[in-house]
Amino acid sequence: MIRAGVIGATGYAGAELVRLLSAHPEVELTGLTSQSYAGRPFWEVYPHLYKYVDRLLEEQETGALVGRCDIVFTALPHGHAMAVAEAVLARGGALIDLGADFRFREAATYESWYRVEHTARELIPQAVYGLPEIHREEIRKARLVGNPGCYPTGAVLGLAPLLNAGLVEADSIIIDSKSGVSGAGRGLSLNTHYCEVNESIKAYGVAGHRHTPEIEQELSALAGVPVRVSFTPHLTPMSRGILSTIYGRLSRSMSGREAYELYQDFYAGEPFVRVLPAGMLPATGMVTGSNHCDLGVVVDDRTGRVVVISAIDNLIKGAAGQAVQNMNIMFGLPEDTGLVGPGMYP
Amino acid sequence: MIRAGVIGATGYAGAELVRLLSAHPEVELTGLTSQSYAGRPFWEVYPHLYKYVDRLLEEQETGALVGRCDIVFTALPHGHAMAVAEAVLARGGALIDLGADFRFREAATYESWYRVEHTARELIPQAVYGLPEIHREEIRKARLVGNPGCYPTGAVLGLAPLLNAGLVEADSIIIDSKSGVSGAGRGLSLNTHYCEVNESIKAYGVAGHRHTPEIEQELSALAGVPVRVSFTPHLTPMSRGILSTIYGRLSRSMSGREAYELYQDFYAGEPFVRVLPAGMLPATGMVTGSNHCDLGVVVDDRTGRVVVISAIDNLIKGAAGQAVQNMNIMFGLPEDTGLVGPGMYP
Amino acid sequence: MIRAGVIGATGYAGAELVRLLSAHPEVELTGLTSQSYAGRPFWEVYPHLYKYVDRLLEEQETGALVGRCDIVFTALPHGHAMAVAEAVLARGGALIDLGADFRFREAATYESWYRVEHTARELIPQAVYGLPEIHREEIRKARLVGNPGCYPTGAVLGLAPLLNAGLVEADSIIIDSKSGVSGAGRGLSLNTHYCEVNESIKAYGVAGHRHTPEIEQELSALAGVPVRVSFTPHLTPMSRGILSTIYGRLSRSMSGREAYELYQDFYAGEPFVRVLPAGMLPATGMVTGSNHCDLGVVVDDRTGRVVVISAIDNLIKGAAGQAVQNMNIMFGLPEDTGLVGPGMYP
Amino acid sequence: MIRAGVIGATGYAGAELVRLLSAHPEVELTGLTSQSYAGRPFWEVYPHLYKYVDRLLEEQETGALVGRCDIVFTALPHGHAMAVAEAVLARGGALIDLGADFRFREAATYESWYRVEHTARELIPQAVYGLPEIHREEIRKARLVGNPGCYPTGAVLGLAPLLNAGLVEADSIIIDSKSGVSGAGRGLSLNTHYCEVNESIKAYGVAGHRHTPEIEQELSALAGVPVRVSFTPHLTPMSRGILSTIYGRLSRSMSGREAYELYQDFYAGEPFVRVLPAGMLPATGMVTGSNHCDLGVVVDDRTGRVVVISAIDNLIKGAAGQAVQNMNIMFGLPEDTGLVGPGMYP
Repeated sequence: MIRAGVIGATGYAGAELVRLLSAHPEVELTGLTSQSYAGRPFWEVYPHLYKYVDRLLEEQETGALVGRCDIVFTALPHGHAMAVAEAVLARGGALIDLGADFRFREAATYESWYRVEHTARELIPQAVYGLPEIHREEIRKARLVGNPGCYPTGAVLGLAPLLNAGLVEADSIIIDSKSGVSGAGRGLSLNTHYCEVNESIKAYGVAGHRHTPEIEQELSALAGVPVRVSFTPHLTPMSRGILSTIYGRLSRSMSGREAYELYQDFYAGEPFVRVLPAGMLPATGMVTGSNHCDLGVVVDDRTGRVVVISAIDNLIKGAAGQAVQNMNIMFGLPEDTGLVGPGMYP
Repeated sequence: MIRAGVIGATGYAGAELVRLLSAHPEVELTGLTSQSYAGRPFWEVYPHLYKYVDRLLEEQETGALVGRCDIVFTALPHGHAMAVAEAVLARGGALIDLGADFRFREAATYESWYRVEHTARELIPQAVYGLPEIHREEIRKARLVGNPGCYPTGAVLGLAPLLNAGLVEADSIIIDSKSGVSGAGRGLSLNTHYCEVNESIKAYGVAGHRHTPEIEQELSALAGVPVRVSFTPHLTPMSRGILSTIYGRLSRSMSGREAYELYQDFYAGEPFVRVLPAGMLPATGMVTGSNHCDLGVVVDDRTGRVVVISAIDNLIKGAAGQAVQNMNIMFGLPEDTGLVGPGMYP
Repeated sequence: MIRAGVIGATGYAGAELVRLLSAHPEVELTGLTSQSYAGRPFWEVYPHLYKYVDRLLEEQETGALVGRCDIVFTALPHGHAMAVAEAVLARGGALIDLGADFRFREAATYESWYRVEHTARELIPQAVYGLPEIHREEIRKARLVGNPGCYPTGAVLGLAPLLNAGLVEADSIIIDSKSGVSGAGRGLSLNTHYCEVNESIKAYGVAGHRHTPEIEQELSALAGVPVRVSFTPHLTPMSRGILSTIYGRLSRSMSGREAYELYQDFYAGEPFVRVLPAGMLPATGMVTGSNHCDLGVVVDDRTGRVVVISAIDNLIKGAAGQAVQNMNIMFGLPEDTGLVGPGMYP
Repeated sequence: MIRAGVIGATGYAGAELVRLLSAHPEVELTGLTSQSYAGRPFWEVYPHLYKYVDRLLEEQETGALVGRCDIVFTALPHGHAMAVAEAVLARGGALIDLGADFRFREAATYESWYRVEHTARELIPQAVYGLPEIHREEIRKARLVGNPGCYPTGAVLGLAPLLNAGLVEADSIIIDSKSGVSGAGRGLSLNTHYCEVNESIKAYGVAGHRHTPEIEQELSALAGVPVRVSFTPHLTPMSRGILSTIYGRLSRSMSGREAYELYQDFYAGEPFVRVLPAGMLPATGMVTGSNHCDLGVVVDDRTGRVVVISAIDNLIKGAAGQAVQNMNIMFGLPEDTGLVGPGMYP
C-alpha cells in the first residue's frame, strides 16, 4: 500500500483528492492537514464522506506528516509547495503539487506572473509537468510533479495534436474557457457567493490570467516554436466542469475527417481522452465525475480555422484525478487504478 | 456472472441502472431495450457512457431478451411490467420492476390510484416490496420485486423507527418532499423544460400523488394500525435528490438523544442508512451519487412534534441503486457490491 | 416628493429597496448608508444600477441623514433599528424597519427569541406590524412600522382567511417553507457559497427559527386564540422566492369551492394578493420581480386537512416591496405606486 | 394609443413582448395569436401575467388581426413573417418581425443559410435592420423592420466602434457567445430539457450557426470591407442572458484608455448602451430584465488583440425590448418609453 498524505485537504480539490484516495485500492491515507479545521474529523467538514473518512485533520505542519508518507500531495494556493518540497524529497518521499509552484521550467516566468519569489529554484530541473498524455515517460521517473492547472489541462490536450503536427499558425490561437465555480475553491468571496454567480456568466482575468504562461509553455514545446495565446476564462453558473472552445488558423487546408483521424491517432490507447465521432461535441455534463477529457474537432473551411472543443471535470482531470493518475504512473500501477469508470449523468 | 437485462434502458432511471450494472463486478449486461432508440448503440443516447456501453439497444420485446437473462429489470412507467413478468418468471428469471406494478399487496389499491386494471394479479402474492432495510429476508427469497418509488423510499426510511416503536400518532403524519427534476424522467414536457423549472419551486399532485398509498401501505404495516398521511411533493430546481421533511405528533414526550438512539439502533449495521449526529441535518447534496439515505431527527418540545428529515439520491437509492441492492440480496452477493462508495461533492 | 433614506443600503434587501425607490415617481433618495462601502457610489457595489443610482454611500451614521429624510428605512440585521428609531421619530420622520426590532407586540417575545435586550421598548406600543392586507388602517396612521419577515409574509397571508373564519384547528398548523438564497443576504458564509447551495436542498433552523414567534403572534391575533405552529425553512438552490406549503386540520368539512371563495372574498380588492383559480397552484417563478403573493388552496377530504400554498418574491413582497407598499399607505399614495406590474418570466 | 398585435404571442420572446406592451403607456394590445393555445386567455399560458393580460388568444390568422392593429409584431420562427408582411403593409400597418425574414439585404444570403425560398423578395428593399444604435434614422422612416437576432445584437454593438474606425483586421474576428436557455424558445426538445442543460455547458452550431451571415452583413457595412467571422454559440445553464466575448487583431496599437474613449464617444447619448469604466467587465446578471447592452473593452498588448465583452438580456435587448425600442422610434415616441429602468439583481 502506498502511504499518502494530503496537505490542504479541505479545499475542493483537496477534498476530491481525499475522496479518490480513500477509495483507491493501493492507497492508505496516512495524513490530512487543514489550516482551518485542524483537530476535527474530516467528515465533519465534508459530510458526504461521513462513515468513509474518519481521520482527524492535522495542523498544516509537514514535519510529522512526511515521515508517514510515501507520497505527499499539496493542494494549496501557489507559494506553499515550494516551502515543503525539499523536506518531502529529502525523506525519500514523492511530491505532487496541485498548485503552480512546480509547473514552470523557468523560475522567471513563474515569478513574473505570480509576483512572488521562487524559493526552491534548485528543484525545478527535476520537476515534471504532470500531464500524462504529453509527459508520461518523464512522470514515470519523477519524484516531483507539478500537476497542471485546470484550464491548461483542457487547452493543451485540445491543441496538442495540431501543434505537434505543425498544422496551426502559432500566433493565431484563442482559447475561450468556461469554468464551473468549484474551480474558485471553497474560500469565501463575493465572486463565489451564490446569488452573485447564479443566473449570470462573466469573463475574468481577461488578457492576464495566470494559466496563460503555463498554456504557452506547453504549446510552445509541442509546436517547437514560441506560441502566444489569447486566453479568457469565464465563471459559469454550475459547480463542475470546464469547456474550452479553441480557435486557430490552419496552416494548410484539411478535411474534418483528416482532423478527426489526427486526433484519434494522437490519443490512441489513452485511457482518459475520448475523441468524439463527427457530429458529436463535448459538453461538460458528459465528463462530470470522471477523469475524462472529451474532445471534438470542427474544421471551418469558410474561415480557414479549426475549432477544437474540450471538456473536463475541473476537480478530477483538472486537479485531483490527474494527480492520482500521475501517482499511479510514478508508482508503476495501472494508470487508471482508482479512476475507473464513466461520469454520472444527469 | 449474473446475466442482466434492462427493459426501458434509456430513461433516466434505466440509464443509471445501466451505468451501475456496467460497472458491477458480478454482472454481465445481456440486453438493453428502448422504445425510442432501438438499433442505436447505448452511448449515442447517453454520451457520458461512450467507450463504456457499446451494446446496441433492442426493440422493446421481451421474448428474446428473457432467454438471455438471469434477471430482468423493468424501468418503465406503470402498466408495463405486469405484461412481461409472467414470461420472465416462467423462464426461471427474476424480475425487479422499477415501476409501480408490483409494489402493492392489494391490487385494488393499485387500480384505484393508477386507474388501470392489474393484469397479473396472480403474481402479486409472490411479489416483495423491495425496501431492503424493512423487507430484507423476504427479498432474499423473492423472484419478483417491486422496487419502491423514490418518495416512499425516503419517507418510509424516515418514519420506520418511530412507527415501529409506536411513538407517533397514526393520523398526524405530514410528509413534505422536495425532488430534483430527474425524477420526472427524460420524456419531454413543459413541466421539465429548463426555463420552466429553473429558479422556481412548486408543489404538484397535492393531496393526490400516487406515491401516497405506497407510503401508507408500508407505514401501516410498520405501525400495526392504519396510517393515513398528507404527502406533498415539490419540483425543485436541481437535477438529483429528494429531501423529505416529515412531521408527526409524538405519542409521548422524548428527548432528542432518545430519538437519535432509537434511529441508531434501528439502522445499526445498515450499509446505506446514515443517521446523522445531533447538530447535523441531511442535505441532498451530501448523498448525490451514492446509495445512501441520510437521516436527521429533531424533537420539538414546544409543539410535541418530531421532525425527521431524510435525503436520498432519487436515481440511486430512490431507483437504480436500490434495484441493484435488491439484486445483490436476491443473488446472495454482499449487499453493497457495485454500490460501494460515498457520493460526489460538490 | 417624499425624501427617503436607506440605512444599510448594500445588503440584498437594501439594494432592492434602492432600486424600487429610485424608480418611484413620488420619492427622492436623499441618503444611502453602508457600513462596508461608505464613500463609493452605489452603482459600484451594484453595477446593474450603473447610470441609475450615482449617489455616494455614506457612513452608517444617522444624525445627518435624519434631517434630510421624511422617511427612513432600516435594512439591517435585528438590533440596529431600535438604536435609531427615537432619533428619526423625534425629528418628525417616519421609520420602516425591515429587521425584527418592531415586529413584536411583546418585547419579551423578541428578547427571548433574539437573545438581545430591546432598548426602545417605549416605542413598541406605537409600532405597527406592516402587513397591509391585515393591518392597513393602523399602518395608515403609523409613524413606525415593523416590516414583516419574509417567511411570515407568505405564511400569514396563506392562513389568514381560514384562521379569521375559525376553520382550522389552532394546534394543527405546519408551515414548510422553501426559500431562495437571497434571503440569507449578501454577507459571506459557507452556507451561501455557490457550490454549497447549488444542486442541494436542506432544512435549517428546524423547530427554532426566529420567524416562528412572529408567525404565531399574527396567527393568534387572527384566530383569537393562541396558535402554535411547526415551522421549517429550507434553503433552495435559486436566488429569489419563497414557497410555503401550509397544512392544517379543518375544524369542519368544506369543499374546495368553498375554500376558494373564502379566499377570494377575504382578499377582494387587494392589489397584490392573487388567489389562483382551482387547478392552478403557485410557483415562485410566477411572482419573481413582483410584489405579489399568489395563493392556492386545496382541501383534502381524505385526511381532513387543508393545504395552502403561497408564493412570494422574498426580496419584494417579503421585504423591499412590502416596505414601499407600507410607505405608500403611510403617505396617502395609491398603494401600488412604484410597485405596479407583474413579475418577469422566465 | 398605438394598437398593437402580436402573432406568435406564446413563445418566450412573444410573451416578453406581451409583458412589455401591456405595460407600455402608449400601447393598447388589440390582438394576440397562438397556434397552440388559441381560445384560451393569455394568463393561463403564462400565469405570471394573471390579472394583467386577460385577452383571449386567437387563431394564427392575420386577416382579422391586421384591421385592428397599427403595428403587428411577428414572433415566430423564420418563414412566417414573409407570408403576412404584404397584408399588414397593404392595410397601412407597420410590421416588426422578430424572426429572420427581413434581416438580410440579399435574399440569396437568407435563402442559402435558412434553406427556404424567400417569398416576399419585393419587400426586402424597404425592410430596415432594426438595430437602433446603428440604423436609427432608417428605422424612423420604416414600415417594415427586421428585428435583429439575439446573438447579432450583442456582437454588432460590441464591434461597431472598432470596425467603424477601421481599427480591427477584418479577417481576425472571433465571436464566442454564451446564451441562456430561453433563447431556444418554449418548444419542447431534449436540448432544453432541464436535466440535459443543468450543470453543463456546450457549444452548438459550430461554424454553421444562422446568425453568422447576419453578423457579417452588419459588420461588413460598418467596416466598409467584407468581414468574415468565426462565431460559436454556447448553451449555458441559466434562463436569460447572452455574453459575447469578441476577439480581434488591432490594426494599430492603442491604449486601453483610447479604446474606452472610442466606445464612449460612439455610444454617447445612447439610452441603452452602457460602456463600463475600466476595471469593470459585463456580466449577464447585470442586465437581466433591462434593455441594456453593457460593454467592456480590454486591449491586450501582449498579443496585439482587443477583447470586447458584451452582455444583453436575450429576451429584451436581444428580442422583445429591442422590438419595442424600434416601435417607439417608428411612432415618434421617446425611445425608452415602456423600457425605462435598470434590470433586477440578483
